Amino acid sequence: MHPGNSAGAPLSPGLVFEMLQAHQRTAALKAAIDLDVFRAVGEGPGDVASIARHCSASERGIRILCDFLTIYGVLVKEDGRYRHTATSAAFLDPRSPSSLASIAQFLANPAMHEPYDRLAEIVRMGRTILPGDGTVEPDNPIWVQFAETMAPMMAPMAAPLGAVVLEGHTGPMRVLDIAAGHGLFGIEIAKQNPGAHVTGLDWAPVLRVALENARKAGVQDRYDMLPGSAFEVDFRGPYDAVLLTNFLHHFDEPTCVGLLKKVHAALKPGGRAATLEFVPNEDRVSPPMPAAFSLTMLASTPAGDAYTLRELTAMYNEARFENITAHPVPMSPHTVVMGRA
Amino acid sequence: MHPGNSAGAPLSPGLVFEMLQAHQRTAALKAAIDLDVFRAVGEGPGDVASIARHCSASERGIRILCDFLTIYGVLVKEDGRYRHTATSAAFLDPRSPSSLASIAQFLANPAMHEPYDRLAEIVRMGRTILPGDGTVEPDNPIWVQFAETMAPMMAPMAAPLGAVVLEGHTGPMRVLDIAAGHGLFGIEIAKQNPGAHVTGLDWAPVLRVALENARKAGVQDRYDMLPGSAFEVDFRGPYDAVLLTNFLHHFDEPTCVGLLKKVHAALKPGGRAATLEFVPNEDRVSPPMPAAFSLTMLASTPAGDAYTLRELTAMYNEARFENITAHPVPMSPHTVVMGRA
Repeated sequence: MHPGNSAGAPLSPGLVFEMLQAHQRTAALKAAIDLDVFRAVGEGPGDVASIARHCSASERGIRILCDFLTIYGVLVKEDGRYRHTATSAAFLDPRSPSSLASIAQFLANPAMHEPYDRLAEIVRMGRTILPGDGTVEPDNPIWVQFAETMAPMMAPMAAPLGAVVLEGHTGPMRVLDIAAGHGLFGIEIAKQNPGAHVTGLDWAPVLRVALENARKAGVQDRYDMLPGSAFEVDFRGPYDAVLLTNFLHHFDEPTCVGLLKKVHAALKPGGRAATLEFVPNEDRVSPPMPAAFSLTMLASTPAGDAYTLRELTAMYNEARFENITAHPVPMSPHTVVMGRA
Repeated sequence: MHPGNSAGAPLSPGLVFEMLQAHQRTAALKAAIDLDVFRAVGEGPGDVASIARHCSASERGIRILCDFLTIYGVLVKEDGRYRHTATSAAFLDPRSPSSLASIAQFLANPAMHEPYDRLAEIVRMGRTILPGDGTVEPDNPIWVQFAETMAPMMAPMAAPLGAVVLEGHTGPMRVLDIAAGHGLFGIEIAKQNPGAHVTGLDWAPVLRVALENARKAGVQDRYDMLPGSAFEVDFRGPYDAVLLTNFLHHFDEPTCVGLLKKVHAALKPGGRAATLEFVPNEDRVSPPMPAAFSLTMLASTPAGDAYTLRELTAMYNEARFENITAHPVPMSPHTVVMGRA
């Protein structure tokens, strides 16, 4: 991602300075989203005065912020006017159907940033300094926010995940969606297979978001809710498939294996368990996005990690799953890893 | 710097995600410096257990932190061991004479980060939300920290600045170093010209750092101190040269012009005023480092900016300076802009 100084180029401290200032990029993007800058730019005409008026902000502030966003590739400046890049038009203008603006509310919210102010302490202890179990503390309200805001980032993964799990299978089936969150993955199964009945499992306040999304998708008649902790509630199987999306990375390996055993016991023979995960290569430093995700788990959980395929396969095996396969989701940093009961 | 999605490449939200997570890079580098990771890596053997022992930290924390630093180009990982990149060896290992590790104490200190948590509010108002005048509030203690920690970043600029100001001139001369800070720029003039006598102007607690550096350089007999505000104290001219390094960017144009007039009045005819500044191109979005610096001024001052050469030239002209010339400092984002009285 940032190879540092390339061979032959004169050595420069630019990379060090850039890293020490990198926090400004997060703050600038969050501020621009909060101020509705990307809608103002999309609607035009894109001069400082118009954008400032739209955003109820100072011209000095808007000019400096938009210049900064231009430097970092999410706006273009020409003759003193700003317009969208392909990236900002597609993913940051709230008028775009693929807008990701809401994910800033989760990824850049102050509660999620707190651990990074104390990262040295976290590295010393080897676990989050957030109260209790951090983000995996029961009923942590951030998961309601996750469900409400992160759906646009996860939505493009739903169809590929559904296709991997169903492999064209139609007709009656029961699916359990563990840590359903926004519910999009289970809902997608219900959409792809009109015979599928989906049970969403999550904390009750989170499931309200999932149920609302099921309603919007018109599959609420085949969607029901199992509120509580995945480690405590009776799964009420047997199921044809269990989804475990963005979940295992929060826990240590023994906890993951214990959960996978419980999943195995709730599956029909031949049933499938599908995890959606950031899966780095065995070197743990590539590809950049999945590999870097382990820092988020260090900062926010007691023992979570971005597991490699070898580690995930070992966990599945220990829980007596067979025929474990990995399916990288195109155009995304995620991989579906599937095991058969 | 980050051109976003290049033409022809499939559109991906990677850049948006990367910006929203960029704050992690600052936190990771700061934590690694605070934990002494770069010394541990430099001393070897570079396995997780040894580094963790050296840093009194958990192996889980060190492994995840070092992987993250590898992803972002400031370590290399091979066969499970970490070693320096050219960048980290030169600029992050505290054993290196060019180490910049101390600058993290200034650039990544919590007081400097506070405004970024409220950047939308700052953009609305067009000025810092820090108390009073922010970083330019009289006697703000951050300037002692700046003087103590940022010298390694500024040191490489001192010789080129000195050469531009002196142009080989030797013999008796008087030099005023406004906002002297660490004092390195004035000290360099004293080193290059044994006939130069330097007066450092800054807040009294800051000047103690400058004087200590003058002692270390062996020029303390030709270095004296003028404590106080550059806007209030009598400069006690006339001088042959006045240095204004990293100073004008904190203020609005009328304030800069007022100060330049005061400088002009304190110079002998033909004397020189040399500013060291981040000078972006007239488009204000290139080159990346000087252009991005205006965000720091928005966040931390009432009305500062990264001024373009046209703006600086206009200020110099208004203060009746002549023959204004720009001298980019090689291998740095800074430019010396010099005017003649």
